[in-house]
Amino acid sequence: MTVTHSATAVLSRYLPAIEAAIDQVLPAAGELTVMLRYHFGWCDATGQPSRARSGKRVRPVLVLLAAEAAGGSGEGALPAAVAVELLHNFSLIHDDIQDRSQERRGRPTVWAIWGEAQAINAGNALHVLAYRALARLAVPPERWAAAFDRFTATALRLCQGQYLDLAYEQRATISRDDYLTMIAGKTAALIGLALELGVISASDDRALWEQYRRIGEELGCAFQVWDDLLGIWGDPIRTGKPVGEDIANHKKTLPIAYAFEQARGDDRTILSAAFQPGPPDPRLVPQVLAVLDRLGARAFTEQLAHDTIERALHALAQVPGAPGPRADLATVAHYLVGRDH
Amino acid sequence: MTVTHSATAVLSRYLPAIEAAIDQVLPAAGELTVMLRYHFGWCDATGQPSRARSGKRVRPVLVLLAAEAAGGSGEGALPAAVAVELLHNFSLIHDDIQDRSQERRGRPTVWAIWGEAQAINAGNALHVLAYRALARLAVPPERWAAAFDRFTATALRLCQGQYLDLAYEQRATISRDDYLTMIAGKTAALIGLALELGVISASDDRALWEQYRRIGEELGCAFQVWDDLLGIWGDPIRTGKPVGEDIANHKKTLPIAYAFEQARGDDRTILSAAFQPGPPDPRLVPQVLAVLDRLGARAFTEQLAHDTIERALHALAQVPGAPGPRADLATVAHYLVGRDH
Repeated sequence: MTVTHSATAVLSRYLPAIEAAIDQVLPAAGELTVMLRYHFGWCDATGQPSRARSGKRVRPVLVLLAAEAAGGSGEGALPAAVAVELLHNFSLIHDDIQDRSQERRGRPTVWAIWGEAQAINAGNALHVLAYRALARLAVPPERWAAAFDRFTATALRLCQGQYLDLAYEQRATISRDDYLTMIAGKTAALIGLALELGVISASDDRALWEQYRRIGEELGCAFQVWDDLLGIWGDPIRTGKPVGEDIANHKKTLPIAYAFEQARGDDRTILSAAFQPGPPDPRLVPQVLAVLDRLGARAFTEQLAHDTIERALHALAQVPGAPGPRADLATVAHYLVGRDH
Repeated sequence: MTVTHSATAVLSRYLPAIEAAIDQVLPAAGELTVMLRYHFGWCDATGQPSRARSGKRVRPVLVLLAAEAAGGSGEGALPAAVAVELLHNFSLIHDDIQDRSQERRGRPTVWAIWGEAQAINAGNALHVLAYRALARLAVPPERWAAAFDRFTATALRLCQGQYLDLAYEQRATISRDDYLTMIAGKTAALIGLALELGVISASDDRALWEQYRRIGEELGCAFQVWDDLLGIWGDPIRTGKPVGEDIANHKKTLPIAYAFEQARGDDRTILSAAFQPGPPDPRLVPQVLAVLDRLGARAFTEQLAHDTIERALHALAQVPGAPGPRADLATVAHYLVGRDH
């Protein structure tokens, strides 16, 4: 509770600047802007202002904190923070199409309102805007080139992670290693990028960039593992996602990979039936939940998330960094594996 | 015939270098590479080498010719040429999903083989690779920043043009002005970019960048108008597109916009029925063709394409440029409105 409270304080300290900076970038998308503003929770489908629940902006806050930890200013890192958040949201708009998700944060997804074709367009425009945001990062040319290289390399890793996530839906089962490879691209790379870009915006110490990137990748793993937990056991009112959606979509998340490794006899039969390739059968969801319960998949998943965060925090304590921002980074890191949405 | 022959000679002079440079970039997409190589016509769906008909690579050749016209080397401009061609092909992969096109150049489209979700991914990876290709353009930082600015601005215009193209499918009719706004984003901007990037790679004369960009935009308009013609009256064996596909898909191309402006009485009734929003009725295609015939839509479209090219050639004759490459540019320009695929 205290961690959540302090993390909320850290996150909200930076939120106004981040939201304002994103809002400045979007109009360049012309007619597509309304879809993007809707996605960010700022207007309804007709463009009228609304106050929908927006994202937590964890990634851009991590960029700013890393910049401050490395002795720079949050303001200087803002273009990189915006670029990372736009890249993330471009991938969300496309993910929702790919996964056929009808809802996000309790509202219809962009494709559910405007159709797939225009939602593909909206995501593409946001992808381009991410690069345009990065263009404003005011650092010497060699450093900018490095930031750009990391940014595009990460965007590629996102595509590859998403490729695996979709490919795994067609497979009967995956191992924990398969799972870790997938989330390394799908989630960890982007949070690693967030920390690295923050440090790049502040310092030309390449070793430091790398150290922070690795910490970010650990944080990202923990973040995704916790997300998997919420995707199965989270409160749908808090998460904004229907109960059992991940299971019904044949998502091979960590609890499922773990359960496949552990299950024998009837449990294995149930898992195999629920996850066999082909149209999902939502009636099997309660049975899968019972199997996960019997095998202790939830406790295992929680433990792994916490262990991963501890490793990241340990590494964070070893790297050079200004004490205040570093403590804030630790607070946000703790929050990543305790949040309820 | 002579023009086509000489244009083919110009295009094929640069083709090996362009193909090799693209081929070098694609493997960074990891598991997605096979979809991209398939799209480029270099392998079949299993990854086995094949010799499918590939694109004409008009855009990258225009980059190289513009670079040479501005006193630079084609080799120096190659990263920009690759970036432009990848951006174009990213948009083709997504367009095919959006338009539900089953075939391109006589083969199944990427989404028709791998499904929509993975085709969205493949397109996104190619979009990122376009930026990575541009990163290799070796020019001074300010010039690179200008190239990057033009590149992302053009990518946004592509998204907006595609937005309009799709939005027009839902409208009963459009004017010629609506049409010109749409193709300015969808096609002309990218060909304008091709010429501009070529000149940026060779010269720091900003006025010259702009002059060549405008010429490119005119060429792009003519190119798209000719494409519209092929989309209705082209030989399906040469174009690789089924007969009447544009009409069946309610595409508001120039001959259609023109026909809507001219049609009265029964002709208008037929057009209104064929293009009313909702599921298309392929049985109306022959009647639409008869209306276009009665109204002289084909002659009008051809004339407009030729007039536009003449304007571009006139402008080209006025700008500074090395004579040889400029003559080659003119040859390719002529070919754009005479080609049969």
